[in-house]
Amino acid sequence: MAKPLILVSNDDGITARGIRHLVEVMVELGEVIVVAPDSPQSGMGHAITIGNTLRLTETDIFQDLGVLAYKCSGTPADCVKLAKHHVLKERNPDLVVSGVNHGSNLAVSVLYSGTMSAAIEGAIEGYKAIGFSLCDFSYKADFTHSLEHVKHIANEVLKKGLMPGVALSVNIPPKQNQSIRGIKICRQAKAHWEEEFDHRKDPYGRPYFWLQGNFVNNDKGEDTDVWAVDHNYISVVPCQYDMTAHHTIAQINDDWDI
Amino acid sequence: MAKPLILVSNDDGITARGIRHLVEVMVELGEVIVVAPDSPQSGMGHAITIGNTLRLTETDIFQDLGVLAYKCSGTPADCVKLAKHHVLKERNPDLVVSGVNHGSNLAVSVLYSGTMSAAIEGAIEGYKAIGFSLCDFSYKADFTHSLEHVKHIANEVLKKGLMPGVALSVNIPPKQNQSIRGIKICRQAKAHWEEEFDHRKDPYGRPYFWLQGNFVNNDKGEDTDVWAVDHNYISVVPCQYDMTAHHTIAQINDDWDI
Repeated sequence: MAKPLILVSNDDGITARGIRHLVEVMVELGEVIVVAPDSPQSGMGHAITIGNTLRLTETDIFQDLGVLAYKCSGTPADCVKLAKHHVLKERNPDLVVSGVNHGSNLAVSVLYSGTMSAAIEGAIEGYKAIGFSLCDFSYKADFTHSLEHVKHIANEVLKKGLMPGVALSVNIPPKQNQSIRGIKICRQAKAHWEEEFDHRKDPYGRPYFWLQGNFVNNDKGEDTDVWAVDHNYISVVPCQYDMTAHHTIAQINDDWDI
Repeated sequence: MAKPLILVSNDDGITARGIRHLVEVMVELGEVIVVAPDSPQSGMGHAITIGNTLRLTETDIFQDLGVLAYKCSGTPADCVKLAKHHVLKERNPDLVVSGVNHGSNLAVSVLYSGTMSAAIEGAIEGYKAIGFSLCDFSYKADFTHSLEHVKHIANEVLKKGLMPGVALSVNIPPKQNQSIRGIKICRQAKAHWEEEFDHRKDPYGRPYFWLQGNFVNNDKGEDTDVWAVDHNYISVVPCQYDMTAHHTIAQINDDWDI
């Protein structure tokens, strides 16, 4: 059997430590090609570049691992689109992986996440796709405890596939004294961000703001991603990009005067 | 009864013709406050600004309508967050509306849409929220046929509410000889974008790309947003931000070795 072809991207940028760890794991599973942003793209959601140009440049950053790599001036979703059309061309990846993100992408954060946008873009293109996030924002986060699990999950997806229209969001607890207790297939917690804005004045006396947020979870369910990570399990949430709230269609039809 | 408080945003920027039409309609329904991007933000998806500063500046652009307005340097989602925390403060809007977008947001486009991200951000904050899109990309698009319907839909939502966790995506057919046939409550079509990249060389001989896409719909359902607009109906899709693919959780639990 031919080695699987694995496309790797992320949102922290091609020089982040998390993507190097992910590439190191993926070369054990198949042929790896990297197309990742040339600068940090955290919080970019599912943005695409439609009012501006895109650059795509080969780089030897993963030459030591024998991996062909390109840096892209665009968003994570742009990276996957350009990879398909200008790097892979007639070849279809057997798997698209994104990450490993420096920081969690739990609950509603999937919507804001550049990491997950690369995975979801992969799913939209019809590929099996996974976004990996380590729940540790630090640049020097310790990924070592996560790597065997990243490999196991990628292997399961390669072997067993995923339903069409679905990408996985994997959140890994930060390194702790106890080892990870296992993997839970979860739903997104009904949690949210409570924002605060740090209001400052620039050197010219004009106001500006920094967005800050506190993650607040009031969802008591034990089947959620937040519960899993809080209890030292890896959470795996299958995410769909069809956002239709099917359960409300009949109600609106009944209620509205149309 | 106090007049409802209506927050207006968009993604084409505060000077776009679509947002002026939306403000003109909303002042007939309540007290209107505008917080909208100071530059075009199409395709920004649910991006938020976390690595950079934000500006928020009062503008008299809607003074002729008696409407307080602010332009914001960030994304549509940033606009809604800043509106909540630094403009509305203790007041909660009765309705958040975004648009009217110059161009459709059908099917999977909701994920890429800046227009819908403002509405979905409103829903995340617990507000009733609607994104309006006219299926005509032109700067000089004719919105006149859409405005009575925009008013009617906003009124229905103000009177009858929406389920928590849901924002509406409204797509309005372009102006045609025949008047609009009515409103359909729809699901997102299983349609997608087939991209092409226009590959060029800059004046220094270096390559760059422009993203281009063709919208392709293979979904034959007559209950979809694409079908509705193609048949001169307004489509209304209830959209949820919980992206969990609940129907696949049991299957993954059965299939995987975890």
